[in-house]
Amino acid sequence: MSPPAIKYSPRVTPTEWHDIDVVDERLLNPEEFKSAMEQIGVERYHSLHPFHHLLHNGELKHGQVQAWALNRYYYQASIPRKDLTLMARLRAPELRCAWRSRVLDHDGYEVEDGGIARYLQLTTALDLDKDYVISTIGILPATRFAVDAYVQFVSSRSELEMIASSLTELFAPAIHKARISGLSKHYDWADDNALAYFKKRLSEASKDAQFGRDYVIRNATTRTQQESVLNALRFKTDVLWAQLDALYGAYVEPGNIPPGAFVPDV
Amino acid sequence: MSPPAIKYSPRVTPTEWHDIDVVDERLLNPEEFKSAMEQIGVERYHSLHPFHHLLHNGELKHGQVQAWALNRYYYQASIPRKDLTLMARLRAPELRCAWRSRVLDHDGYEVEDGGIARYLQLTTALDLDKDYVISTIGILPATRFAVDAYVQFVSSRSELEMIASSLTELFAPAIHKARISGLSKHYDWADDNALAYFKKRLSEASKDAQFGRDYVIRNATTRTQQESVLNALRFKTDVLWAQLDALYGAYVEPGNIPPGAFVPDV
Repeated sequence: MSPPAIKYSPRVTPTEWHDIDVVDERLLNPEEFKSAMEQIGVERYHSLHPFHHLLHNGELKHGQVQAWALNRYYYQASIPRKDLTLMARLRAPELRCAWRSRVLDHDGYEVEDGGIARYLQLTTALDLDKDYVISTIGILPATRFAVDAYVQFVSSRSELEMIASSLTELFAPAIHKARISGLSKHYDWADDNALAYFKKRLSEASKDAQFGRDYVIRNATTRTQQESVLNALRFKTDVLWAQLDALYGAYVEPGNIPPGAFVPDV
Repeated sequence: MSPPAIKYSPRVTPTEWHDIDVVDERLLNPEEFKSAMEQIGVERYHSLHPFHHLLHNGELKHGQVQAWALNRYYYQASIPRKDLTLMARLRAPELRCAWRSRVLDHDGYEVEDGGIARYLQLTTALDLDKDYVISTIGILPATRFAVDAYVQFVSSRSELEMIASSLTELFAPAIHKARISGLSKHYDWADDNALAYFKKRLSEASKDAQFGRDYVIRNATTRTQQESVLNALRFKTDVLWAQLDALYGAYVEPGNIPPGAFVPDV
């Protein structure tokens, strides 16, 4: 069921480098294509990252959880800019309309009803000053570089690739469930108010992901296009993974906080 | 001599957040301005990073040095694209001419005479396949995000900021000297051929840095512009630092290599 290796896939290790098959040009059928997408989740989604294991099992100190929430805010708050950048490049009004709910979900009809406002309930519950969080002054440079790469990606890639880069939403409900139950169980601050963003995402992400997957299955009509979809999805898993690597290095092990970034009190 | 804190400097810690002075609008004189630039080097240049201490003191295994050289290749090879992006946005032909030598230094009059070719002597001396290195398939996503952020920076910022972002060259000769002597002393492969890139940069970087510093001193005529220069320089130190953080986390401690990245044999 899994597709053969493709030359110039960005996922080839040195040992494989001299042993790459010529690309198989056969179009994957919808089931094979879906399975190739799922496989990327199984191998590369950030639910596998050790930082999430610590977070969801209550093994992080307060300051480490603060660092996570503070940095993740930049990702969260950049999503509507990402979606608007993407929408601005869609030629079909039908597609722009279909995509619009993502922006409304995060920005809100009014700001106070949106996902970003709900996310700030989390950082406030974690004793972080709201203006400090919104300023993004204390985030890790690596967080900024990864998130900005995502916005940049949708500003320059094909319609297929930019839509495919959202498909990590296929894997999101499972991690949101694990997060909600893990945080509720292990941390005093983690009440319904603090976790409102993740609870709401359970339904939103699932609807969006179905739409995106149907779109790429319908519109990737050559194997090269299918591979570009898979590579866009890999790219997005890199964006998520790199953020956790940076958090882990700065706040867990070795605990080397870069100059100027947030320093926890506890 | 050092300038007062400025609001919205990206370098404010949470404890300082509620205690920021209104920005002093006084223009720094050239000596103060130079000293503010130097201070950024003292506090934030990547010569301070623990990865460099290990590298220059011979405390890294062969595979860890390979990972460093492999990842750094992407930075090295992107510099002419960065400089051409920058030059394409310069309005004065005099400035474009003055900047041109940077591209020639790296790309060469002919490719085989340029800095990138000299850099590949290093990766070859480290037993890395040249085509594998050039493909950049095995680099850390965080390396790509940081380097691409640098190219993106010069494609969108003011003339002053894009020129200022090169000013880490002010601090480069010292680290190149430390690298040449450290590597020569500790590693068998580190002969003149392998280190040719760094040896040549000793003279190139110094000339370029004087030009850039004179330019920003002459053209930053308000305090706000001076602060934008200092922030551009801080941004660039973040680009360099983040690359070493990623290397450290993946290949030293905790040694968590992201999915798909280079895995050393030894």
